[in-house]
This record gives sequence, C-alpha cells and structure tokens, in this order.
Amino acid sequence: MMKPLPLDKVYRFIEPGPVVLVTTAQGKERPNVMAMSYHMVVDDGDPPLIACMLGPWDYSYRAFRATGECVIAVPTVDLAAKVVAIGNCSGADTDKFETFGLTPLPAKMVKAPLIGECLANFECRIKDDRPVENYNMFILEVVAAWVDPERKERRVIHHRGNGTFVVDGRVLDIRKKMTKWPTYIRD
Amino acid sequence: MMKPLPLDKVYRFIEPGPVVLVTTAQGKERPNVMAMSYHMVVDDGDPPLIACMLGPWDYSYRAFRATGECVIAVPTVDLAAKVVAIGNCSGADTDKFETFGLTPLPAKMVKAPLIGECLANFECRIKDDRPVENYNMFILEVVAAWVDPERKERRVIHHRGNGTFVVDGRVLDIRKKMTKWPTYIRD
Repeated sequence: MMKPLPLDKVYRFIEPGPVVLVTTAQGKERPNVMAMSYHMVVDDGDPPLIACMLGPWDYSYRAFRATGECVIAVPTVDLAAKVVAIGNCSGADTDKFETFGLTPLPAKMVKAPLIGECLANFECRIKDDRPVENYNMFILEVVAAWVDPERKERRVIHHRGNGTFVVDGRVLDIRKKMTKWPTYIRD
Repeated sequence: MMKPLPLDKVYRFIEPGPVVLVTTAQGKERPNVMAMSYHMVVDDGDPPLIACMLGPWDYSYRAFRATGECVIAVPTVDLAAKVVAIGNCSGADTDKFETFGLTPLPAKMVKAPLIGECLANFECRIKDDRPVENYNMFILEVVAAWVDPERKERRVIHHRGNGTFVVDGRVLDIRKKMTKWPTYIRD
C-alpha cells in the first residue's frame, strides 16, 4: 500500500543509484513503462529536483515531452527479471503493464500511473528542458511522493553495465561519525 | 597498481551510483579531496561525460573552478570510514591525503592526483559549466581513466542518506536476457 512520503526524503531513494522504472501516459493511449539508470539528485530539499537522461530513442520520449510528466518508480530485487524484460521490449508493440503483471495506480498530481509493485513512486513534472538541447538531459521536479512502508523486500538493484546488476547488501550506519556533514544527511 | 581503462568502460563504475571521492589541486597548494554522490552518466561513449553537483559550499570548489579539472576516484567498502571522515572535515584546515593515509599518484592529463587506494580513477575536465547558473551542476569530460585490476575488494558503497550506506551485495548476470538493449550494455 502506497503511503505519502515527505518530499525532503525523496533523495534517499535516488542518491544510492538504483535502476528505476519510468511511467508515462498520454491521452487515451495505454500507459507505458521503461527502465532508466542515468539519473541523479540535483536538489534534496522540497521540492526535490532530479536530473535524468531520456531521449528520442526511448519510445516513452514522445509522451514524456507531450505531457511534461512521468512517474519514477523504484523496483526492488524481486522485480529484477521484469526490469530487464521491460527494458528489452518497446511500448510501441507491447502493453508492458499487462505483459509484466504490473498494477497501474492513479497518481495524485500527474496522469502517468504509479506502479503498485514498486517500493516507492515519485510523481514528476519537467521543470527545465534546456539541458536537452546538448545532452538529452531533463530536470524533473517531484510533485508528490509515495512509499510502501510495509514492503519486506527493500533491496534495490544497480546497473553495472554489461548486463550485470548488483543487489544491495549490508547496510553501514555511520551517522554518529557524520557530525559535520550537512544536516540533510544527518537528520 | 593503476592500469589504463578504455574510456568507453568508465560508465560502468558511475552508473551503479557509488559514493566517489573528488580530488583537486591548484598551483602549489596541497591537493584536496572531498566526497560526492550526486552524479550521473551523461554519455557512456568515448569521451564519457559525467554530470555532478558541486557548489561554493565545498572547499574544493575554488580549485575546481580555477583549474577546470578534478579526478573522480571510486573507493570501495574497506575505505568507508575514511570516506565519511573525508566528508566530515575541510581542506581549509586539514591535509586530507596526509591525515587519512591516502597516496596521491600523478595523473596523466590533469594536475589533480589519482588516489592509489581506490578501485578506479577518472581524470576529468569541466566541459560545460552553463548548468551551474541554475543548479550548481557541471558536465565533466573524462580525459583519462584508470583501474586497479588486481584489487580484491571491489564492492563500492552507496549513500542512502541519514548517515547510512549500503554495500554492494550479490551480482546478477542477466546479460542473456538483454538481447534488445543497446549494445553498450551488452558488449
């Protein structure tokens, strides 16, 4: 069950560098979903800003540009095979939500759907498309955020290239030693 | 021992989202090093492009802007405590290489040093500082890359915020299922 996540906590899911899923929806077309792992935190405050690379080679690009919206969903390791399969076919000829048994949930601020099976979902609007001209880069503003606090599996996957992924392992809590780091990473 | 890494393999170390160290060196000042984890791959080809967030609040900023250069070094889990300590003090009053027992190695294309203890080192030049105006974002071009192929510990750390890090765990090789993904992630 997705519960609201404070916007100033969004960066915690993006900064570690997971592969994410991006959903889009345009008009009466079926929604689509793609895999992405070129993204970073630009602003960890409220509203959070995320930069990402998305280009005309992605089928989702047209709907993304036309609506100016998307949802970034964070899948966990139990979805790894689906994440790869999602990246391995095109929304042009495949209903990916149907094919991969994903549940589209209505978002609050955007038309693109949340993904019920993911750990977290971030509703995004394009804030700035000027970096697109040179780099196919977008700056997204997160306008609503959701997390499933009851989900047991919380380990995300990171793409290493070459078809390999690394799964989250052990967690190190070094909070006490971070006395001089900015407050946003100390709470 | 650092060996040359083909430039089109650099993204493999950045895409998974590790905390990295950034070294700078200006004139006859001692070199400095800082921790960073807001970065992403912008171009995975040759030359590779990396976007990162770096601002005037970082002591390294002045040298970075003045020289237009830095080295991005990738530390592994055995260096986790040092990474936190590096982020927990300032180059203004601390010789971090000396204090944390890091070995500065001469780079090939830039003045900033490589870090001998890291898994990989990427010599970078600022390619574009226009995104700085709005976002403190830089686009870096990697001009030389190094990796230590004999290093046994290769697990990197990812910052989750709130003073916690997650260490690389199990590796999933899903290469065979990625037949339609771009060739750069299939080899």
